[in-house]
Amino acid sequence: MAEAAPLAPVIILNAPQLAENIGAVARAMANFGLTDLRLVNPRDGWPQERAWASASGAEWPLNAAKVCGSVAEAIADLQRVYATTARPRELQLPVITPRAAAVEWVEAVGRGERVGLLFGGERAGLETADVALCQTVVTIPIDTRFRSLNLAQAVAINVYEWRVAQADAPPPNFRPGAAPASGEALLGFYEHLERELETSGFFHPPEKTPNMIQNLRAALGRARFTDQEVRTLRGVVTALSRGRGKVLEKLARKKDSP
Amino acid sequence: MAEAAPLAPVIILNAPQLAENIGAVARAMANFGLTDLRLVNPRDGWPQERAWASASGAEWPLNAAKVCGSVAEAIADLQRVYATTARPRELQLPVITPRAAAVEWVEAVGRGERVGLLFGGERAGLETADVALCQTVVTIPIDTRFRSLNLAQAVAINVYEWRVAQADAPPPNFRPGAAPASGEALLGFYEHLERELETSGFFHPPEKTPNMIQNLRAALGRARFTDQEVRTLRGVVTALSRGRGKVLEKLARKKDSP
Repeated sequence: MAEAAPLAPVIILNAPQLAENIGAVARAMANFGLTDLRLVNPRDGWPQERAWASASGAEWPLNAAKVCGSVAEAIADLQRVYATTARPRELQLPVITPRAAAVEWVEAVGRGERVGLLFGGERAGLETADVALCQTVVTIPIDTRFRSLNLAQAVAINVYEWRVAQADAPPPNFRPGAAPASGEALLGFYEHLERELETSGFFHPPEKTPNMIQNLRAALGRARFTDQEVRTLRGVVTALSRGRGKVLEKLARKKDSP
Repeated sequence: MAEAAPLAPVIILNAPQLAENIGAVARAMANFGLTDLRLVNPRDGWPQERAWASASGAEWPLNAAKVCGSVAEAIADLQRVYATTARPRELQLPVITPRAAAVEWVEAVGRGERVGLLFGGERAGLETADVALCQTVVTIPIDTRFRSLNLAQAVAINVYEWRVAQADAPPPNFRPGAAPASGEALLGFYEHLERELETSGFFHPPEKTPNMIQNLRAALGRARFTDQEVRTLRGVVTALSRGRGKVLEKLARKKDSP
């Protein structure tokens, strides 16, 4: 996975109301490798202590946040600005989803362009006049029966798409699991199990034995056991069959006793 | 876009701490068409008024939320449970991203299976013993330098992927924009503009005119104007050239006056 490029998209919040949401936005930015946050006329001024409290340690976007007096000022150095909105507008602008937009962001950043994502305030979203300053509208494929999306979650979904557009894979600290056991190891386990089952009288009636074995092998095979797991399971079979032996011995002793 | 199926995945929060987060989870569920919420031992009991306050009107998942005493109880009727975690485990379980998982959810739901997504509490996430009750681990491709993901945002990204796996398109209330104007209408506009530019002495030196015209047409063509926009722009050209006429008349009058 690529490290966060210095040119990752800029997040612009126009007239954000709640400092908690600004902090939650910073946290989501840090989760997905973005750092450049711009605040246009935050309602309660800036800085706001509650933003840091709700960022859960993602302080760097907040510490470096730039406060602007207008959307025009906030986008002055950006070559492409995407307006994110859940409300259709009468403007003739392309309307795309975050997934499609993220492909464009990656391409534009690859060409050295600076990209901005513009979000409106919690209550009313973006003014159409601000959308008109953008080149594209981005809208999340939301259930139209409940379109009230939390500001920080809207940012999170967009910056998540930015990151996934670079690589959709578990983080590198998730190491791939052990490989499945070889056919030989598996067959050894199956045969061990089947011997013990044969001894215990499991296969009944005898003419059905081949089918029962096949179905058992298919069921167990779906789990794709690793070598370690095959060793463990052979131990399980041994323990169960020896245990049965002990029970039988115990019963035999009881029978023999007066 | 498909309406929310009754079998959309179930969201299970194990030991959630903050009622605000439970409300934010309900809101994200409503945004993406999910309704079935289960709470395993919510720290502060249930119901909690603050959950409703932070759901911004997405009350139905909260009203119907089922409180369970254990993860085992919460998943008892589910055929597939996905453990969402940002922390690698020693368990031999497949580890996939929400995007890959969403494809499986859609397929499983299509077969009539009930699917659950299990999330841990805010502070410590899921216990490995609870992950072991699941069939698959889902992890978001996060920046490993800042892995502290907000609970409601983790839910939002997963349920967003559930919805997008069904259709990645703007909601139906976003109507497609008007079609681009025809070549004839565009050419009419270009020629109108070029006549007025010719009159105003814009094309200089004259031998460069064909190139200047070509470059201007290419630049304007990229905007893919609609018919309405072409009409507006012809009005713009007319206004500018008439305005220029008026300025010239004014200058002429001034010159003539004593």
